[in-house]
Amino acid sequence: MKGLWTVVNEQQSGGAVVLLSGGMDSTTLLHHVTKTLGRAPVHAVSFHYGQRHARELECAAWQATAAGVAEHRVVDMSFMAELVREGTSLVEGGSTVPDLDDVPEHALSQPPTYVPNRNMMLLSVAAAYAEASDLHDLFYGAQAHDEYGYWDCTPAFLESINTVLAQNRAEPMRVQAPLMGLKKSEIIEMGASLGVDFARTWSCYRGGEQACGTCPTCVERLNAWEQAGQTDPISYAEH
Amino acid sequence: MKGLWTVVNEQQSGGAVVLLSGGMDSTTLLHHVTKTLGRAPVHAVSFHYGQRHARELECAAWQATAAGVAEHRVVDMSFMAELVREGTSLVEGGSTVPDLDDVPEHALSQPPTYVPNRNMMLLSVAAAYAEASDLHDLFYGAQAHDEYGYWDCTPAFLESINTVLAQNRAEPMRVQAPLMGLKKSEIIEMGASLGVDFARTWSCYRGGEQACGTCPTCVERLNAWEQAGQTDPISYAEH
Repeated sequence: MKGLWTVVNEQQSGGAVVLLSGGMDSTTLLHHVTKTLGRAPVHAVSFHYGQRHARELECAAWQATAAGVAEHRVVDMSFMAELVREGTSLVEGGSTVPDLDDVPEHALSQPPTYVPNRNMMLLSVAAAYAEASDLHDLFYGAQAHDEYGYWDCTPAFLESINTVLAQNRAEPMRVQAPLMGLKKSEIIEMGASLGVDFARTWSCYRGGEQACGTCPTCVERLNAWEQAGQTDPISYAEH
Repeated sequence: MKGLWTVVNEQQSGGAVVLLSGGMDSTTLLHHVTKTLGRAPVHAVSFHYGQRHARELECAAWQATAAGVAEHRVVDMSFMAELVREGTSLVEGGSTVPDLDDVPEHALSQPPTYVPNRNMMLLSVAAAYAEASDLHDLFYGAQAHDEYGYWDCTPAFLESINTVLAQNRAEPMRVQAPLMGLKKSEIIEMGASLGVDFARTWSCYRGGEQACGTCPTCVERLNAWEQAGQTDPISYAEH
């Protein structure tokens, strides 16, 4: 199924849109698309959806400039906080973000940080933006680990999204997720080789001055750095 | 393929979400879902996406009350106006809405009133709302005529959207479009038999006090009423 999310043996060129959250995965992806793939013009698109903090978006803006994108658009999807309040702990007003140790095993198929239908919403808005910008390739940082927690980070999900977008008769879109097959530690290695400044990325779900070190994404990030045999350049309140 | 968008020979009950624009199709659909299908609780969801006027949403609110819905949510998706400005004439700041007579034949495969990827965006947001509300059926007023103009109003489009949403392991969603096989004149007949007050629906793309009578949707609406052998209860500036 690999051919469905990475395009093998095909020359690709021209512009593209990259979904950029400001975390490690999408930041590495952005620099991969501009430096390794040499795509141009590259537009980055980020989403404000009522996250508990602005750090992620500040990092996204910094990385977009560092990568020399032609345009960085932040889309106000703050309606998501109101819309899905009962369904998630990731947005303002939702329940408290739990420590990973407190999450019961059986809940991991839809973890407490899951936002209902988030990736379909973000990809559909990014596709609209790409269409209006006359760009036809979307790059999206879904990666293997997320598969275990989120139904909307799998190869099958991506394939079905592409089936929808290919039907656009005037402006067919294609979503690619070249990190899909990689572990987070491998993404760190890839980013390091691209010169990514990981001090300017943000992962923590909580809104502190420092990353907390105990929420699910902090734990995941710390584990990945350990597996990569390198030291995370950001500081943590606790770990 | 009919079974893909209308569910035949299957008992359905319980709650549902209806996408409600305030036009004739989605209004008829709402009353069909509450009265004919007897679904409850019904939530209606409407979208503010920078339409040129508020008339459509006022009609949606009136119809939601008339149908006795448990909740009517208007989602602020006004980012769409900014995001897709170059791509459409339907939102504020876009180019002028043309008269149907001025649209060249070859342009009809993607008409000037097309909003990039609109229906995928609206359905994905409606699905998130349904998931957060613990409802699993979405009703959507796509109908046959739109097929000719919009790639995102076809049975194949809907089937592919359902393939995406069925993958949600905890909260699988299903979109149904029971009007898909009907002509607009048949929808008028259906609505009339349900007692729908069509004076409280709005179709015109322009923002005048009265419907203009000459834009593509006004022409389509007037033709449908003529085919139904009935008189449209709204007044027009010109026709």
